[in-house]
Amino acid sequence: MTIGIHARIEGALVMIGFGSIGRGVLPLIERHIGFDRARFTVIEPSGDFAHILRDRGLRHLQLALTPENLAEVLQSLFPEGRGMIVNLSVDVDSVAVMQLARKIGVQYVDTVVEPWPGYYFGDMPNAERTGYRLRERVREVRKAHAGGPTAVSCCGANPGMVSWLVKEALLRLAADLGIAAEPRRREDWAALMQGLGVKGIHIAERDTQVSNRPKPPGVFVNTWSVEGFLSEAFQPAELGWGTHEKKLPPGGHVFDYGPGHAIWIDRPGADTRVRSWCPDVGPQFGYVVTHNEALSIPEYYTVHDGGRAVYRPTCHYAYHPCNDAILSLHEVKGAGRLPAAQHILAVEEIVSGGDDLGVLLYGHAKGAMWYGSRLTSAEARGLAPWQNATGMQVTGAVLAAMVWAAENPDEGIVEADEMDHVRCLEVQRPYLGRIECHYTDWTPLRNRINHFPEDRDEGDPWQFTNFLVP
Amino acid sequence: MTIGIHARIEGALVMIGFGSIGRGVLPLIERHIGFDRARFTVIEPSGDFAHILRDRGLRHLQLALTPENLAEVLQSLFPEGRGMIVNLSVDVDSVAVMQLARKIGVQYVDTVVEPWPGYYFGDMPNAERTGYRLRERVREVRKAHAGGPTAVSCCGANPGMVSWLVKEALLRLAADLGIAAEPRRREDWAALMQGLGVKGIHIAERDTQVSNRPKPPGVFVNTWSVEGFLSEAFQPAELGWGTHEKKLPPGGHVFDYGPGHAIWIDRPGADTRVRSWCPDVGPQFGYVVTHNEALSIPEYYTVHDGGRAVYRPTCHYAYHPCNDAILSLHEVKGAGRLPAAQHILAVEEIVSGGDDLGVLLYGHAKGAMWYGSRLTSAEARGLAPWQNATGMQVTGAVLAAMVWAAENPDEGIVEADEMDHVRCLEVQRPYLGRIECHYTDWTPLRNRINHFPEDRDEGDPWQFTNFLVP
Ligand SMILES: NC(=O)c1ccc[n+]([C@@H]2O[C@H](COP(=O)([O-])OP(=O)(O)OC[C@H]3O[C@@H](n4cnc5c(N)ncnc54)[C@H](O)[C@@H]3O)[C@@H](O)[C@H]2O)c1
Ligand SMILES: NC(=O)c1ccc[n+]([C@@H]2O[C@H](COP(=O)([O-])OP(=O)(O)OC[C@H]3O[C@@H](n4cnc5c(N)ncnc54)[C@H](O)[C@@H]3O)[C@@H](O)[C@H]2O)c1
Repeated sequence: MTIGIHARIEGALVMIGFGSIGRGVLPLIERHIGFDRARFTVIEPSGDFAHILRDRGLRHLQLALTPENLAEVLQSLFPEGRGMIVNLSVDVDSVAVMQLARKIGVQYVDTVVEPWPGYYFGDMPNAERTGYRLRERVREVRKAHAGGPTAVSCCGANPGMVSWLVKEALLRLAADLGIAAEPRRREDWAALMQGLGVKGIHIAERDTQVSNRPKPPGVFVNTWSVEGFLSEAFQPAELGWGTHEKKLPPGGHVFDYGPGHAIWIDRPGADTRVRSWCPDVGPQFGYVVTHNEALSIPEYYTVHDGGRAVYRPTCHYAYHPCNDAILSLHEVKGAGRLPAAQHILAVEEIVSGGDDLGVLLYGHAKGAMWYGSRLTSAEARGLAPWQNATGMQVTGAVLAAMVWAAENPDEGIVEADEMDHVRCLEVQRPYLGRIECHYTDWTPLRNRINHFPEDRDEGDPWQFTNFLVP
Repeated sequence: MTIGIHARIEGALVMIGFGSIGRGVLPLIERHIGFDRARFTVIEPSGDFAHILRDRGLRHLQLALTPENLAEVLQSLFPEGRGMIVNLSVDVDSVAVMQLARKIGVQYVDTVVEPWPGYYFGDMPNAERTGYRLRERVREVRKAHAGGPTAVSCCGANPGMVSWLVKEALLRLAADLGIAAEPRRREDWAALMQGLGVKGIHIAERDTQVSNRPKPPGVFVNTWSVEGFLSEAFQPAELGWGTHEKKLPPGGHVFDYGPGHAIWIDRPGADTRVRSWCPDVGPQFGYVVTHNEALSIPEYYTVHDGGRAVYRPTCHYAYHPCNDAILSLHEVKGAGRLPAAQHILAVEEIVSGGDDLGVLLYGHAKGAMWYGSRLTSAEARGLAPWQNATGMQVTGAVLAAMVWAAENPDEGIVEADEMDHVRCLEVQRPYLGRIECHYTDWTPLRNRINHFPEDRDEGDPWQFTNFLVP
């Protein structure tokens, strides 16, 4: 257990949402952030975990934020215009809160670009229900207002920490290849990735956490927000689109606005599988669930020549959720209906397993390299209360974002890629279990049970078409 | 528990294979078949369950049958050319054993057309690795030799019992629609189905059996033969092709030999999903795993006019295996490798759930009707030892086939559709839990989470294209 105050928050501290992540962040904040207990408020409509706040003498504002009450509620909590908002809710528009934070003059942290309710399951055409569009809303605010109070957009485990891992992975790969590297600016990092010959990156996750209560029929079980997961799982699949890619996948579409560095596939992420790779298990299927890091990382690592992008990696999430979530996905897709009930596995229920969350850099001279955090649920239990391994990988990143925002209060809107990965990982590392690096000679062209038609590109194993399961 | 000898087997009784089904059949044979204990032999290469045979004083011939030893071994067990062979093995060619049984002059029962090893995972083109081809081998023998000692081909739960359920379901549907029906010959049954307006039939199964030991990573877990399931799961999907169908599915192929009443899809059954329906759970995904009943039923119910087929139902398996098998499939497909280890859930390990195995008749005036057996694992435990609910639905059908073959010793090669469903279900019914009939207004066009491209035929909800998940 790491003790030590990393930073102080002067003024009020407001947490929006006290779900699985909000509860998990709390003990880390208490341990590592200096703040005024009398001015810590949690806004959370549910009373389910109110006792935790009551026991600690923290203020619980039991209401749901709406477009109507948002400004009034938040402004009243920051009478002197100082402090920080940590948004860990669903159903609250991130851009609205971010803009309000700027107006009030306080720092802001969230883990996802969340819209008001109605976006994820409305009648909107799929072309519009994309993460790309959500991210463009943030980018527009940023374009309109450079600088100002720091607002960290999308900083949990992924999006978030994985951007820091990409940087450590690049330095490790460079060292292992005997290539000198001292990147400082964004351009240096992009040039480094290009120079190393990285064609693409999976955010390659395997959640092996299991309870010994069989998944109850009709209940969607996950290790983190069921609502958060379902929302993104039934958006179209999305990915940053590498400059080496030769052809769009079936149902693939480009964007005709914004940086145009990504594509969407007219298929739910929850039903779009890729061949991927994680330690111990080796080859596995991951779901291409849309995520902000699949957009921010490839943009950050684009190399331009004049106006033209001459290098960009492919980048996307390749998510193997916990087995109960695999079953839950199969069930809701088969039912064609959202679940009637949901459950997040508490750390006490989990009898084995953990979360391996890393970045798989592929296409370089050493084939593929997985670099990431391997944390068991049992380890998580020993580190801090109220969270499983998945939650802890997120909450440590939220903590790091808060520390970094407190230390760098005037950076305007930033994503994890733009933050100091050394400082952030320093804060987070005690909560990540083992950081491991694994090379593998696996490629997506390997390993098949019998042969069925597929669109293989034997000339370049690292084409997206080889990863995508038809 | 039903006591009572239904039939006697004169001469020797030889069981090939003492796996999950062989062990489960044994107590039913002991209970309901008269036989000479001194002349009961089980041929089984594994010694894992030898103690069961030893304890009962039954002869265990511990060897694996091969093309080389088959004739010698079997002939030596039938010195007087009387008795019955019950083949419940994998990796032993059914046609070879069937032909030998005819030569020896004994009755024969199996539950699947099984080939010698090498067929399922060899280099053969997919067009050849079909159940259609396996079934044609049986049909050729049958064409060459009409009559002779009865050989029941493919009589377990499915293929097998479900053919009897189709008949009961048709009579029930006719009664509920107020249509008089007294079918006797095959032609009558086919005309009845046509007259009722049945467009298709799912063998609609939901296995809800769960243990409270989480599926161990790397182990393929199922409620019956893992080898048997994997073999068929990685054959191409296959289905009887109804005369109402307007267009072939993607990757769909017709057969240019034999009756030509079925199609195969160039995709493993293990990865070919259809929207289907079962009691309680309602809409669910099922896998189109190739099965003999998907070929025998639509052939049996074809109505000819001159040489032309003017009516035939679509028919296929829509299998939702137990949750551990869903996870196992996901795992082996993701790994692209067959499992290193396997496990069949014993009835003692199962803490809840059962097997709902029925036929879903759709497209008629009442929409869709599920008719089938609902048996819990707990009920199975009370009925006979050594089997879960899935096994019991199979073993009761094997028992019925043995009884019917003993009572009708000279019918030549037959499939379940051609047997007396009343007599067979009379024998099997005590082991089927509740036989239930459910109507539903569900169609495969209903229920979606968001809208993604699919090939919908709004004009006819019962087209295969509406069932198939893209
Ligand atoms: N970047 C990452 O790595 C990462 C990882 C996990 C979760 N997340 C995101 O973090 C968020 C929280 O995740 P979680 O697992 O704690 O979710 P959760 O579902 O457990 O909790 C969300 C909480 O928000 C509350 N809420 C709902 N509507 C609200 C409103 N109008 N006003 C205030 N609060 C409201 C809910 O009552 C709930 O307690 C989600 O958006 C999720 O997608 C990000
Ligand atoms: N029609 C149905 O409803 C239905 C249902 C379940 C199983 N089955 C079929 O029944 C068969 C048995 O199923 P199970 O669950 O008992 O399978 P299992 O894998 O538990 O047992 C198969 C047995 O066959 C034995 N065997 C392997 N090679 C052999 C050889 N060369 N000679 C003799 N024995 C050999 C194995 O040692 C094993 O004990 C399989 O073919 C399966 O597909 C049909």
